[in-house]
Amino acid sequence: MSNDIQKNPSFLYARIAGVIQQQILDGILRTGDKLPSLRTICREYGVSQNTAMSAYYDLESKGLIESRPQSGYYVRYPRSRRPSLPNATTPSSMPHDGDPDALVSQVYGTLGEPGSLPLSLGTPANELLPIAKLNKGLMLATRSLTGSGIAYDKVEGSERLRRQIARWAFAMECNLGMDDVITTSGCLNALSYCLMAVADKGDTIAMESPVSFGMLRLAQALGLRVLELPMHAQTGVDLNAYEHALREGRVKASLLIPNFSNPLGSCMPDEHKREAVRLAELYNVPLIENDLNGDVYFGTQRPKSCKTYDRSGLVLWCGSVSKTLAPGYRVGWVAPGRFREQVLRMKLYHSISTASITQEVVAGFLETGRYENHLRKLRRTLHANQLNFARAIADYFPEGTRASCPQGGFVQWVELPRHVDALELYGKALSHKISFAPGRIFTLQNQYGHCLRLNYGLLWNDELEGTLRRLGELAKAEV
Amino acid sequence: MSNDIQKNPSFLYARIAGVIQQQILDGILRTGDKLPSLRTICREYGVSQNTAMSAYYDLESKGLIESRPQSGYYVRYPRSRRPSLPNATTPSSMPHDGDPDALVSQVYGTLGEPGSLPLSLGTPANELLPIAKLNKGLMLATRSLTGSGIAYDKVEGSERLRRQIARWAFAMECNLGMDDVITTSGCLNALSYCLMAVADKGDTIAMESPVSFGMLRLAQALGLRVLELPMHAQTGVDLNAYEHALREGRVKASLLIPNFSNPLGSCMPDEHKREAVRLAELYNVPLIENDLNGDVYFGTQRPKSCKTYDRSGLVLWCGSVSKTLAPGYRVGWVAPGRFREQVLRMKLYHSISTASITQEVVAGFLETGRYENHLRKLRRTLHANQLNFARAIADYFPEGTRASCPQGGFVQWVELPRHVDALELYGKALSHKISFAPGRIFTLQNQYGHCLRLNYGLLWNDELEGTLRRLGELAKAEV
Repeated sequence: MSNDIQKNPSFLYARIAGVIQQQILDGILRTGDKLPSLRTICREYGVSQNTAMSAYYDLESKGLIESRPQSGYYVRYPRSRRPSLPNATTPSSMPHDGDPDALVSQVYGTLGEPGSLPLSLGTPANELLPIAKLNKGLMLATRSLTGSGIAYDKVEGSERLRRQIARWAFAMECNLGMDDVITTSGCLNALSYCLMAVADKGDTIAMESPVSFGMLRLAQALGLRVLELPMHAQTGVDLNAYEHALREGRVKASLLIPNFSNPLGSCMPDEHKREAVRLAELYNVPLIENDLNGDVYFGTQRPKSCKTYDRSGLVLWCGSVSKTLAPGYRVGWVAPGRFREQVLRMKLYHSISTASITQEVVAGFLETGRYENHLRKLRRTLHANQLNFARAIADYFPEGTRASCPQGGFVQWVELPRHVDALELYGKALSHKISFAPGRIFTLQNQYGHCLRLNYGLLWNDELEGTLRRLGELAKAEV
Repeated sequence: MSNDIQKNPSFLYARIAGVIQQQILDGILRTGDKLPSLRTICREYGVSQNTAMSAYYDLESKGLIESRPQSGYYVRYPRSRRPSLPNATTPSSMPHDGDPDALVSQVYGTLGEPGSLPLSLGTPANELLPIAKLNKGLMLATRSLTGSGIAYDKVEGSERLRRQIARWAFAMECNLGMDDVITTSGCLNALSYCLMAVADKGDTIAMESPVSFGMLRLAQALGLRVLELPMHAQTGVDLNAYEHALREGRVKASLLIPNFSNPLGSCMPDEHKREAVRLAELYNVPLIENDLNGDVYFGTQRPKSCKTYDRSGLVLWCGSVSKTLAPGYRVGWVAPGRFREQVLRMKLYHSISTASITQEVVAGFLETGRYENHLRKLRRTLHANQLNFARAIADYFPEGTRASCPQGGFVQWVELPRHVDALELYGKALSHKISFAPGRIFTLQNQYGHCLRLNYGLLWNDELEGTLRRLGELAKAEV
């Protein structure tokens, strides 16, 4: 183990922390167990005292271990209190074109209400974002851009940003050039152009189930039918069902969130991604990949994308900084493979170009390493939050509650006991100024009525713990 | 006359200048005629010496008059050398769905070439835009916006901007409230949502002919057919043809540029607008109004919009600052009348929201009067340019050349003698590093082959005059 860790010395501490964390989460180390002394860590892994301390600080900040004065470090995290994982989902295999919109409006219409904690959102709270540095970036951008970005940008988008995105993608072994990338006004906008490029009104698109309601609504706005695919809480889309849909020729394209799906938080293993791409090629069905959460991983390295395995250009890889840096900047992108011309046309025809100045700020962030610095902090915070949420759900929610265990991203899927009506719970929670996203909005079918999605991209504190406790109590009252 | 001018004392000088200008352009005052002395102006109009001088400065800056030392002011502008207006256009009355795209790409693919003067563009040159003030606005916006605009904006857009747009619209007697307005990523984006909201694939949309190729391409991307309507060079769309199309039930909606159309530069008289709205109501056909040039008028007040006369909510009024302030900011808007819900959904489904920071800058510009100040300068510059272009066309272009005489906007339509092939001319001009927009790209039909569009939103100087002269010589060689 120590040998493997030595190979990449830059984040030694994170790797050591990762090993111990896994041992805690797997129950190899149990609550109250004493951890090896710092000196032992130094000797075992062949690292400096500083590195060993950084590893322990990392674990401490996640609430996994605690230091006891004069005594050392002990496991704090209660393994036994993690909720069980949800079972695989079982949506109907018929395409649907219902309308979840009224319900969505009801939920998201209340967000403006002061005091209601935004557990229903799928973006990180402002407090987790580098506002001051972004503002500085804006000033720099007015200087670095020709004419301060006042003129129309190129249709394909900022050259500087596209170069940085290609460089960034290289880190997950995605071999892209600047010209493979087109920038957009956020990720949903990229998905919109992709769907318009590959599908026509009346066509069927395969998606995960449950799935981001934004993607459902987009498909419906374009007159597309949606075939919902079963999902596994940890490994994402069921590949058998996916192949079945492709083999039967029923779908014009598929649209997946392979990394940290929304709302489940699942992550397809690399071999699954490879297989999904192989099947896309075998049946010649474009795969639109929504990878907007891939950078927010809790492990030691970024999960790969389907695009990594794409040799035929059938994968349209979409991303953005809306979930990591600045939702309000509306900066996203797509590497549309063989559909470049079509996607470029859609962007040109519907919007001419995207705003220059925000693209420039993001390019600067990527170029100077400020983005990676920020992400490192964000990942640690979110991972700690995820662990805290899991514990709180185990502690406060009704017996029999299941919850996904995301290894990245911002959202957590919770399955209450089957007879609990999450919509009724929603109404009651709202009167306590607590909001969440009811499971029913993540499907066009009549299911997930006992489920809900929580956003843990918030500042963890006693108030938030109290909110989760109250929510749990309300849920218990429904049982 | 002087009485009428007295009514609004704020821009007395502009009104006096307007009267004299009209006399010059109408040939009542001819080249070389001596103008009344400043003292006479003061007495006749009952104004101060300063006001009289401002009026003459204004006329001088437009190249209409010149001062001769020790003698006074004389008419300089050669009335006789204005080109004749083009005849009304006669497009086929069958809907089309051809594809002008290859040609458009050819023209706009060359814009990056250094040295080629952007006569082909339809936006003002950077030199005419208030870059420094916009940058200052950016700094202010990071302070005035909650969280510096990092979070998602509301779907309907910045409240501050929507309030300012409503206030702005009030100036043309458009009675809008903040809630009637939805912001978008530029005007084309607004048109895109409007078309998606009111029409379905396969429907027919009535448009002007010739018409902005961006609007043609957008319609085609949405699978819409286009019925092209005849146009008059000064008064815009032919109302008989418009009514005919509506009465026959052939069109699902119409999409017009009533103020300073593109590429003709025509402006519908107010009574025509009123009539167009009446017909829209009579036949219950939504009217999408592209009013992105309305603020760039050369007269003494902003032309009204169709929205001014809209009582039934059938007019979807679209605008932006892309042609006046900052194309690269991508800030536009729509007041969609009774289609508010549908347009709002389209915006939400395809893009969630628009960037906050650039909206805030524009809101600040409108709020503080910086926008009006800037527009005042811009209008004067563009009017002077338009007069110079008209003179240059009369001086240098082949006998029989006709040209529109826009009273606002940035673009000028030129009809060469009928047997000249503007595409051939385009190729030759390009080898001289001169670019323009061939007429053929402004239609889906096979027409306007001898026409071209010129952008006069540039800095007027000897080089530009030289370019127009060379272009005229090249055109003469084609005759």
